[in-house]
Amino acid sequence: MSVTDFLKRLLIGRKLASTQLGETLLPKRIALPVFASDALSSVAYAPDEILLTLSLAGMAGFAFSWQIAIVVAVVMLLVVMSYRQTVHAYPSGGGDYEVATVNLGANAGLVVASALLVDYVLTVAVSVSSGIQNAKAMLPFLAGNEGMWAGAVILLLMAMNLRGVKESGSFFAIPTYGFMIAVIGMVIWGFFRIFGLGEQLLAPTADLEVVGSPAYDPFVGMAMIALLARAFSSGSAALTGVEAISNGVPSFREPKSKNAATTLALLGLVAISMFGGIIALSHLTQLKLIDPDGQSHFTQNGVPIEVPHETVIGQMARMVFSDFPVGFYFVITATMVILFLAANTAFNGFPVLGSILARDGFLPRMLHTRGDRLAYSNGILVLALAALGLVLVFNANVTALIQLYVVGVFVSFTISQFGMTKHWTRHLKSEKDPKLRAHMIRSRVINTIGMTGTAVVLVIVLASKFIYGAYWAVLAMAVLFVLMRSIRRHYQKVSDEVAIGPSDARMLPSRVRAVVLVQEVNKPTVRAVNFARATRPSSLEAVTVAFDDAHTKEVVASWDEQGLELPLKVISSPYREITGPFLNYVRGIRSDNPRDVVCVYIPEFVVGHWWEQLLHNQTTLIVRTRLNFMQGVMVTSVPFQLASSKYAFDRAERNSAAAWRRPGSGQVRVGGYDEPRAKE
Amino acid sequence: MSVTDFLKRLLIGRKLASTQLGETLLPKRIALPVFASDALSSVAYAPDEILLTLSLAGMAGFAFSWQIAIVVAVVMLLVVMSYRQTVHAYPSGGGDYEVATVNLGANAGLVVASALLVDYVLTVAVSVSSGIQNAKAMLPFLAGNEGMWAGAVILLLMAMNLRGVKESGSFFAIPTYGFMIAVIGMVIWGFFRIFGLGEQLLAPTADLEVVGSPAYDPFVGMAMIALLARAFSSGSAALTGVEAISNGVPSFREPKSKNAATTLALLGLVAISMFGGIIALSHLTQLKLIDPDGQSHFTQNGVPIEVPHETVIGQMARMVFSDFPVGFYFVITATMVILFLAANTAFNGFPVLGSILARDGFLPRMLHTRGDRLAYSNGILVLALAALGLVLVFNANVTALIQLYVVGVFVSFTISQFGMTKHWTRHLKSEKDPKLRAHMIRSRVINTIGMTGTAVVLVIVLASKFIYGAYWAVLAMAVLFVLMRSIRRHYQKVSDEVAIGPSDARMLPSRVRAVVLVQEVNKPTVRAVNFARATRPSSLEAVTVAFDDAHTKEVVASWDEQGLELPLKVISSPYREITGPFLNYVRGIRSDNPRDVVCVYIPEFVVGHWWEQLLHNQTTLIVRTRLNFMQGVMVTSVPFQLASSKYAFDRAERNSAAAWRRPGSGQVRVGGYDEPRAKE
Repeated sequence: MSVTDFLKRLLIGRKLASTQLGETLLPKRIALPVFASDALSSVAYAPDEILLTLSLAGMAGFAFSWQIAIVVAVVMLLVVMSYRQTVHAYPSGGGDYEVATVNLGANAGLVVASALLVDYVLTVAVSVSSGIQNAKAMLPFLAGNEGMWAGAVILLLMAMNLRGVKESGSFFAIPTYGFMIAVIGMVIWGFFRIFGLGEQLLAPTADLEVVGSPAYDPFVGMAMIALLARAFSSGSAALTGVEAISNGVPSFREPKSKNAATTLALLGLVAISMFGGIIALSHLTQLKLIDPDGQSHFTQNGVPIEVPHETVIGQMARMVFSDFPVGFYFVITATMVILFLAANTAFNGFPVLGSILARDGFLPRMLHTRGDRLAYSNGILVLALAALGLVLVFNANVTALIQLYVVGVFVSFTISQFGMTKHWTRHLKSEKDPKLRAHMIRSRVINTIGMTGTAVVLVIVLASKFIYGAYWAVLAMAVLFVLMRSIRRHYQKVSDEVAIGPSDARMLPSRVRAVVLVQEVNKPTVRAVNFARATRPSSLEAVTVAFDDAHTKEVVASWDEQGLELPLKVISSPYREITGPFLNYVRGIRSDNPRDVVCVYIPEFVVGHWWEQLLHNQTTLIVRTRLNFMQGVMVTSVPFQLASSKYAFDRAERNSAAAWRRPGSGQVRVGGYDEPRAKE
Repeated sequence: MSVTDFLKRLLIGRKLASTQLGETLLPKRIALPVFASDALSSVAYAPDEILLTLSLAGMAGFAFSWQIAIVVAVVMLLVVMSYRQTVHAYPSGGGDYEVATVNLGANAGLVVASALLVDYVLTVAVSVSSGIQNAKAMLPFLAGNEGMWAGAVILLLMAMNLRGVKESGSFFAIPTYGFMIAVIGMVIWGFFRIFGLGEQLLAPTADLEVVGSPAYDPFVGMAMIALLARAFSSGSAALTGVEAISNGVPSFREPKSKNAATTLALLGLVAISMFGGIIALSHLTQLKLIDPDGQSHFTQNGVPIEVPHETVIGQMARMVFSDFPVGFYFVITATMVILFLAANTAFNGFPVLGSILARDGFLPRMLHTRGDRLAYSNGILVLALAALGLVLVFNANVTALIQLYVVGVFVSFTISQFGMTKHWTRHLKSEKDPKLRAHMIRSRVINTIGMTGTAVVLVIVLASKFIYGAYWAVLAMAVLFVLMRSIRRHYQKVSDEVAIGPSDARMLPSRVRAVVLVQEVNKPTVRAVNFARATRPSSLEAVTVAFDDAHTKEVVASWDEQGLELPLKVISSPYREITGPFLNYVRGIRSDNPRDVVCVYIPEFVVGHWWEQLLHNQTTLIVRTRLNFMQGVMVTSVPFQLASSKYAFDRAERNSAAAWRRPGSGQVRVGGYDEPRAKE
């Protein structure tokens, strides 16, 4: 423990109080940034992906960018409208996993959960990578080592989250509103320069031509459809994160559902405006991108030319604020920050989902509780390492990562909307009020349209991206699904095995036969004997195994010297073994007295350093493990705290969340759960 | 456990009965091969090392081979004579470690122990490498991948030893006598062909010239001395293993010491004959070797020529048995087998020495006992992996490995002889019998000469080899020395801390307050409550932590349903933690009743697979670990064996040495160690 602990300390310093958003309810103006950073930040890469995919068809491709943008915006509208229904139906903040589980059963819920877990990892990888790619406009030294820099950012986010940052509303509000102001301000200023001042605003890449891939050369028929589908699929990354508000309904001020629905609508409006504005401005200024993997390339007057890759927002900020560098830096900084913030939200969401899955028995149960914050720390580590692996393997190439993304999002969108239609159908069966019925029918129509729309998008995404990398995401989801099902099945099996049946009589053992294992005669042993004696067992024996003659003589002599008023039994062991003869002895007691329970007392050293564990308690550990397999035997450790244990004790106290020292924790009630506390 | 266990099974198959040489005493004719394989096998590489070191001086060097051989033989005689004194003085089979510890103190003993541990590793590496190098004469496909093949042999030896081979006397006798017959037969037949038949027997390399290194070109003065010293140092590898007999005195038939001394003399005679015979024959047949690291090279008529490296025994067998191939194959096979057998003896010696060091507190104490054979298995693994690393790094290059060897041997020779002189001086102080005194004085003279001789050799070895690799051996010894001292110091500190002082009154706790930790209501919990109740504690409480409202309600409801006649206390935990609030509760009991002892009963699942451990008992583990730090608290695990635990139980039973089922094991005596068994 202590080594990893040391490394953790080295990396993240001393621990702060545990993170809490506080119990205050959020007004809409704070709720929007808290839940929208993920959704809004995708505006920073979705337009890029549309343009660079279209570049495969050469100059002809770019003409389609605004049409694809419109389709994306329409799907965005559908999704927002659908989730407004969810928000009203699940004011408890169900989330897609709950909606799917409640309405469609555990397996559907598990599919959604697998999709969400994979997507959290990809959100971190894509957002951080895009943040680095955008930052290159401002910090050119990042170029060449994007993967490394993105990895460093992920480790930083991990450290922050392990440390437990105290996140206030303004932590989210400033970057999110900053980004909104930056992008919308840039777009408006751009339009103003074109239409108001009549300038001919041209992107840095306006005077370049793009040569596409021969595969899409005709750009008619199937080739055209395939490419447009791929461009749309990549662009629909703009929709990721929209569902976040539906998880957060309980955090809104009253009326919760209504406020959440309004915020959702607002989010949709802002996202579509930003997205549409960027696409429109890039169209007007002849902004061009090429595929970073080299499927398309720039030429100038017919001659191939090498231009450093710059994101849409980077080019646009450079162009619009060509005479106002402060604006340029502001846009780039705001973009980078919101992308990192979006990654940070995944660090909050991933362990929470893990905890819910653990509650339902799909993940190790201990992840459900926050004991020592271990659960959350583990979730944060898993997420960070998976995302780190991705950005290093893909060198923070957003386009490559986007191929894996979006699949999970649309899987959960579709299943969740399907769940919602079931929800309304079920409620319609019992609802009589015609006004409410009309509302429900309307909601069901919207969710059905939403489901159909997202299902179509899912099919398009799968078909157009599968061979480009989406199969990895599908595979990861399948593995998670199978794993979580197996864990649940195991828990179910064990639960059946340990369930108390009607025939399980109250078999109280008749006597307790205590055995103290003596290896040395010292304080821990004396304490064990005293403690064992204090329990007043039916019989008490002290037993030592004679694995070494000289040593056993010493033990027997100092035993007699102590006058413990208890004979020491010596078990012979000519083959210098402790475990076997001792176990056999205990087995003998058991078979002589089958109705009694044997309690073995083992003195145990409590040490402070991991290496001390190697020097102590090893025999004890083996003996205890083996005794555990014996029916009717309890094993009692009588700990003896060595001086060095103080170090480990202090560390453990420091590590444990101080939460239980807060008011409300540790109060004791007796009996029925709902009885008043006065009883104590 | 189970994964490593699986790999172990895959590698070494099912376990056989534990290894035992048997309790029969050995006649001299069996004792010789049992203890001499290491010493005799060095004849297979020591002559090579002399010749190839001399080759650095070109043709002029080889003239000195027989002079160096004579010096080596003289030192061998000194060592044999010295150890004959040890054998008489320590009929218990002290070994160098005991001799040094008893006569010179713990630090001297520890230096010897460090040297021996390092030397065991090198014995394996050198012997196996030499076995492969010699086998190349017969199996040319080994060339090029010597390191890999040597590694494979080491892994095979490791597997055999982990499995526990039953080694009989003939296991040693056949290869050892086979090797003696092969080498002596070859030498005699060679001499007979030269002197009896008058043939002009010439080695395969007789018609080549050797060009040495420019560094030794003058071959006079310091250059000459340095090279001769190096050649002698390498050749003194022939002395390794001579001390083995002094460890094995108790295995000899009566009169033990006399028989052991005779066997030692016999061993010296045989080893010197074989060594001298090989050097003499190679001199007569103009056998030449070059340095495998390229410091010297062959020429033919002045033109450099590339010849595959062949060992002395390889060349000699090819030459002597040029018209009798069976003889050739017999010599090579016998050489290879005895070298592997020599490596195998290290696999026996290393864990035994580890066990002795553990007994004295220099290594983790559990290594002293043979519990589950874990100690021996660990020793075998450590030895094999260290040797494996060496042969892979050095690609089974014997010459490179020899630079590290021999240092340890002569460190332990010298210190051990020094200890013997002290031994005689001490005994002379009290001895009155003039005849015995004369004997002792004579012995002391011999040991003093031996000490001086080996000390001189040690200085020569260190001076001539230090920069060629011996510093690695010295470094490893120093690290081991410091490590073992630290372990001993730690044990001493702990032992002082737990020693029972005169003022440690018999403080018997007045009452036992039992607390059962309830997480679920199931069979394990009911069993824990029943067991706790059977101990009739002063007070009994069942406590659950309400970390999740819905779950706690369920627990309380089914608790009431069970009618356990014990109220369930509910500790509130709004921050979803178990450990903190529960520990705080126990702390409260302690501070309210400082004179009582608290006994916490924790139901525990006993599972069969390692991955099940991840799904169960994790919270339990944390709670128990933290409780251990609390004064006056015992923790009782009440195990519940899941059906799957059967698998792990069977495995544990299989793994445990079946030794304790043998006669004599498990007999119980009460009280004083020397009382008759009749008491039971």
